[in-house]
Amino acid sequence: MSAFDLFFKPRSVAVIGASQDLASISGQPIAHLKDKGYSGEILPVNPRYEEVAGYACYPDVASLPSAPDVAVIAVGAKRVPDALTELGKKGCKFAVILSSGFAEAGEEGVQAQRNITAIAQSFGMRVIGPNCQGYMNISDGIHVGFGAPYGLTYPRGHLSLTSQSGAFGNSIVMLASQEGIGFRHYVSTGNESVTTSLDFMDAMIDDLDTHVIAGYVEGFQDAHRLVSIGRRALSAGKPMLIWKVGTSEAGAKAAASHTANLGGAMALYRAAFRQSGIIEVNDVGDLADCAKALLPRRLPKGNRLAVVTISGGAGIAMADGAANGGLQLPPLDPGTVTALKQVLPSFAAVANPLDVTASLLSDASLLKVTLERLADDPNVDMIGLALAAASGKLAVELAREIVRISEERHIPILVAWNADPASVGGAYDILDKAGIPRYQSPVRCARGASALWAFAEARIRVAKVLSEQPLVIHQPEARKALLGRRTDLTEFEAKKVLSAYGISVTQEQLATSSADAVRMAAAMNRPVVMKIMSADIPHKTEAGGVRVRVEGAAAVAAAFDKITANAKAYAPKAALDGVLVQEMVSEAHELILGINNDPLFGPAVMVGFGGIFAEVMKDVSFRLAPIVCSEAEAMVRELRSFAILDGARDRPKADVKELVETLMRLSALAIDLRDVLQEFDINPLFVMKDGDGVRSGDALAKPIVEDIATRLK
Amino acid sequence: MSAFDLFFKPRSVAVIGASQDLASISGQPIAHLKDKGYSGEILPVNPRYEEVAGYACYPDVASLPSAPDVAVIAVGAKRVPDALTELGKKGCKFAVILSSGFAEAGEEGVQAQRNITAIAQSFGMRVIGPNCQGYMNISDGIHVGFGAPYGLTYPRGHLSLTSQSGAFGNSIVMLASQEGIGFRHYVSTGNESVTTSLDFMDAMIDDLDTHVIAGYVEGFQDAHRLVSIGRRALSAGKPMLIWKVGTSEAGAKAAASHTANLGGAMALYRAAFRQSGIIEVNDVGDLADCAKALLPRRLPKGNRLAVVTISGGAGIAMADGAANGGLQLPPLDPGTVTALKQVLPSFAAVANPLDVTASLLSDASLLKVTLERLADDPNVDMIGLALAAASGKLAVELAREIVRISEERHIPILVAWNADPASVGGAYDILDKAGIPRYQSPVRCARGASALWAFAEARIRVAKVLSEQPLVIHQPEARKALLGRRTDLTEFEAKKVLSAYGISVTQEQLATSSADAVRMAAAMNRPVVMKIMSADIPHKTEAGGVRVRVEGAAAVAAAFDKITANAKAYAPKAALDGVLVQEMVSEAHELILGINNDPLFGPAVMVGFGGIFAEVMKDVSFRLAPIVCSEAEAMVRELRSFAILDGARDRPKADVKELVETLMRLSALAIDLRDVLQEFDINPLFVMKDGDGVRSGDALAKPIVEDIATRLK
Repeated sequence: MSAFDLFFKPRSVAVIGASQDLASISGQPIAHLKDKGYSGEILPVNPRYEEVAGYACYPDVASLPSAPDVAVIAVGAKRVPDALTELGKKGCKFAVILSSGFAEAGEEGVQAQRNITAIAQSFGMRVIGPNCQGYMNISDGIHVGFGAPYGLTYPRGHLSLTSQSGAFGNSIVMLASQEGIGFRHYVSTGNESVTTSLDFMDAMIDDLDTHVIAGYVEGFQDAHRLVSIGRRALSAGKPMLIWKVGTSEAGAKAAASHTANLGGAMALYRAAFRQSGIIEVNDVGDLADCAKALLPRRLPKGNRLAVVTISGGAGIAMADGAANGGLQLPPLDPGTVTALKQVLPSFAAVANPLDVTASLLSDASLLKVTLERLADDPNVDMIGLALAAASGKLAVELAREIVRISEERHIPILVAWNADPASVGGAYDILDKAGIPRYQSPVRCARGASALWAFAEARIRVAKVLSEQPLVIHQPEARKALLGRRTDLTEFEAKKVLSAYGISVTQEQLATSSADAVRMAAAMNRPVVMKIMSADIPHKTEAGGVRVRVEGAAAVAAAFDKITANAKAYAPKAALDGVLVQEMVSEAHELILGINNDPLFGPAVMVGFGGIFAEVMKDVSFRLAPIVCSEAEAMVRELRSFAILDGARDRPKADVKELVETLMRLSALAIDLRDVLQEFDINPLFVMKDGDGVRSGDALAKPIVEDIATRLK
Repeated sequence: MSAFDLFFKPRSVAVIGASQDLASISGQPIAHLKDKGYSGEILPVNPRYEEVAGYACYPDVASLPSAPDVAVIAVGAKRVPDALTELGKKGCKFAVILSSGFAEAGEEGVQAQRNITAIAQSFGMRVIGPNCQGYMNISDGIHVGFGAPYGLTYPRGHLSLTSQSGAFGNSIVMLASQEGIGFRHYVSTGNESVTTSLDFMDAMIDDLDTHVIAGYVEGFQDAHRLVSIGRRALSAGKPMLIWKVGTSEAGAKAAASHTANLGGAMALYRAAFRQSGIIEVNDVGDLADCAKALLPRRLPKGNRLAVVTISGGAGIAMADGAANGGLQLPPLDPGTVTALKQVLPSFAAVANPLDVTASLLSDASLLKVTLERLADDPNVDMIGLALAAASGKLAVELAREIVRISEERHIPILVAWNADPASVGGAYDILDKAGIPRYQSPVRCARGASALWAFAEARIRVAKVLSEQPLVIHQPEARKALLGRRTDLTEFEAKKVLSAYGISVTQEQLATSSADAVRMAAAMNRPVVMKIMSADIPHKTEAGGVRVRVEGAAAVAAAFDKITANAKAYAPKAALDGVLVQEMVSEAHELILGINNDPLFGPAVMVGFGGIFAEVMKDVSFRLAPIVCSEAEAMVRELRSFAILDGARDRPKADVKELVETLMRLSALAIDLRDVLQEFDINPLFVMKDGDGVRSGDALAKPIVEDIATRLK
């Protein structure tokens, strides 16, 4: 049972502000319901009419015989609050507000929308919109909304879609239908004043007849729920496909903090997608390609695709697409090769891709034996079959064999076939009815196969993540250091916080006199770095407050005096804590680790290579906290320059294990301090050779100023 | 006039081996010609029949009344040479060999194909195939070939296509037709024993009715012609769209040399595409999207796209697509904003994207004034209009306004519109007839717009390239150093070659005694690097033959002795030239420059960042030699880490001017030595701060062993 069952299958629909002009926005909902033969009650409400489209019209909500299951509000923005209040009093549980003039229309509209939200919450009503176009229960032919697309009929099936754009959402339904996708539910969520896309997606997981969930998304206000909803869908076996638009503005929207600059908000969406197995799509065709592959719910065990074709060209195109989508084309098992050589024509290339040539079209048994052998090949997890424009008498027999083998051997077979439908004698229908994904282009077929594997892989990967425990650490002292603080912590203070969470820092002490400094440096017995410490001097180098590679008592004493003098000259009113005397680390890889506490997603952790190359190349990876060990490992391994840590070009391997451990501890810190910490950077984190651990070389901690609890609700 | 006019519009077609079974491969060519009402002579040749399909059948080629304009050969592979010879003797100029069993079928087939090539050349015949499916002159309805797609009818238009895959080529024609593309010529080139895809593409430039040239390509044997043909098409105003498949195997095919490993052959294809304005496409839909935009031949002056939409969602999707395709969404001119605010509804957002809202559908004048204002806006070069599923009475009026404004103001307008065709009352036909590119998805519409700009930009860019002169340098002495040489040049020798071409090298001398070395180092008056020089010791470091940062007479003398001893121990039989004493360079950026003399393309030059990061990140760019100054500049600027040279993070700017000059000199070297030089690497090239020039720090030159002239034909 889904929370929206009654919404999608209402026994009665009231239309507040119903018009007798059935072509108008407030007339169309009734016209469409009527046209589609809606069997429930249609209840127009408008004091000006006695009837609308043959249905008795009520003067106001109070006069309705009982609370409607769904009320559509189609009055001017100013009259919406009253209508909503009356519906709340009547006991109506679902209202769809078509009216515009709210948050999309400037500051006044934002206020009006807050009012809507408050009214809805006071009655516990679910409100869809305002500024939406309605919704469709395509399975049952109940279309509630306005716009010509509400008057059309769509193929019924098991894809449910949310869209934050009304008109464009309609386009998606129309185009995906033309691509052969069957729909269950579609809802345009408008401004999401109360009920959000994620509310619907969450409920769609519980809807038995929804097999794949898709969404057109401009942004989730409640993005912090994304990972848990995505994971619930994943374990329920329901792929989520999200088209997140606005990617090109990600840069412009990047937060001011250094960590966020390296990725921007889209990086957090992608982190959430990755952590929950959500598949990102980037166009309607792409959405359809993925949905087509996933709707039949036949998953591969691995990413090894055998490509079979009657045309070498189509096979190469599919191979390219498969490689782009992260699939492998394994060599065939020697047994398969031997067996196939005996039956295929001598000029057929028995390899992967396997070109059985157009001989297939004169002898359907060739396809039968080929597919059977491949299905039984231990190296093969799924089959991509490119039939180009094959047509003729055997087409139906080919289709039947494909269906039989896929079902009997439990192996996904995806087909690229673009012959004129009239020339294949019903073969396409046979494939479609059996849930064999069928594409016109081999490249798009490969995209489908890669989506199939992306989902299957995510199920395995996230199940492992869920079997692990994130590190949990509580450090009330660390919280105290940040709570109510208006300035950034000094490096020395920030490193105390790191130490409290078990994150290794450079050996260091705070000297308050030159004698102190000399003694401390002598005890370290190696060159040192010296840095001024003051909460009032965040830019130490600029203030002349840093000296590196200082060695010997005289040099240390001189450096102390010079640094102190420079700081006083730079910021005469600054309160100086002293000079940090720190071991100088060399021969280590320099990485950057960070936390950014995002207003929508909550705390995210980041890892990347340090230095100017890495900054320019933006080689970083993100995850939302908390992360477990396998996620921290994946973050490090997905860096494009990971090979450098892994001993590329005969260099010593770096201590990746400690780097991973540090990421997990940083995640624990991020969670523990999420209500007081805005940002944390470790830059650099020195990663030594394998076995020698890591050291935080410098650290920056920004406290949160306003209360994050209010921002995250 | 194109060289293939008579081929595409033959007065007579003979079919050698014609069958009375019109469904068979050797029967179909006659059947298709007949079905399509071919008005020329059909001449079946087969000793077994008196007639085929009602046409008089000739026993052999000699008996034909005259030489046919085109002969289709459909006999077994073994009988092809005789048939071809007879046709040659008869004076036939074009033969299409459908038969398979040639180069695609192993070593014996390769020999058989060489024989075909020789026969064709001896008669000066153009031979298409073997192992091809035929060709179609779609403009005139002349389909010569086999396969069900030859029996269909396609929309006529101005796209001409070559395909190295027969069956898949048919698929491309079918699918692109469904996308609304009209065709002129299509040819499947098979094994290209004589006539290649590039021969056809070259001729298509001269065909007046071909406006866009496209190709499905697995690989060009005559790739060295690509840039000049591409540039000829560009200056003729004919866009070339190439789908080069096999990209995923580029890595596997990479040549053994270091330079090639960083890019592989696909990098050279992309270099050639870039240098000649060829647009790379990656699927049939992509090909159709680009062709649709380019066929009307209305080019933008710049890359600034105004996006107009009736649905915010569609606008964002188009903006994302435009950004991905390298287009800018400029801010609108203040005059445009003021003017539009007066006419558009108050809730419309006057920005770019410009959401005029669904109000457009009730008042077509809104679109008129919007498009006019945008067309006149000095910031706008083209307009993308997203109408989502807009339909209704005004659709035709909207379409007429779009056509009128695009024509009157000479501005490209591309439209994304996916309403049911039945609901727009012929609006689509109005757009299609006027050559307004129309797409279903805003993302694909943006792809079209970006292809339009890619072509317009290439015309400007390549015109500039052609107005410049590449550096030409002849150095007969350098040639002598490489000619007949079996081992790599030593660093000292390779640097002499560089110096000969005016490429700066480190200050260095070859010492043959320790006293020599001390004197040389003293004269340099700075720390030096010392390296053993021997053609027999290519790996100097491995041999213990390198010392860096050597300073002072004693240290230099000791290093000389140690290096020499190490080398003798490492390779007792090696002939030692001496020890190279070289200035030690620090504080410079380290780049890698290289030449790879590719067997298909000829010499290519490469530039990339040095060091392990750059190697792992593969941040390199390639061009085919010769290059001019603006190309060398573009190579450097397209490095992802270019910002580092350009003074990122307040570092000093590097001497990019000298780096560019060095690339041009390296290109001159590559051309001058193309018949003797296989590979040249400068690694590192030290690039000093602006004004201080560059120095080649180490160099490697590999002579060519076999004769490249035979490989390039």
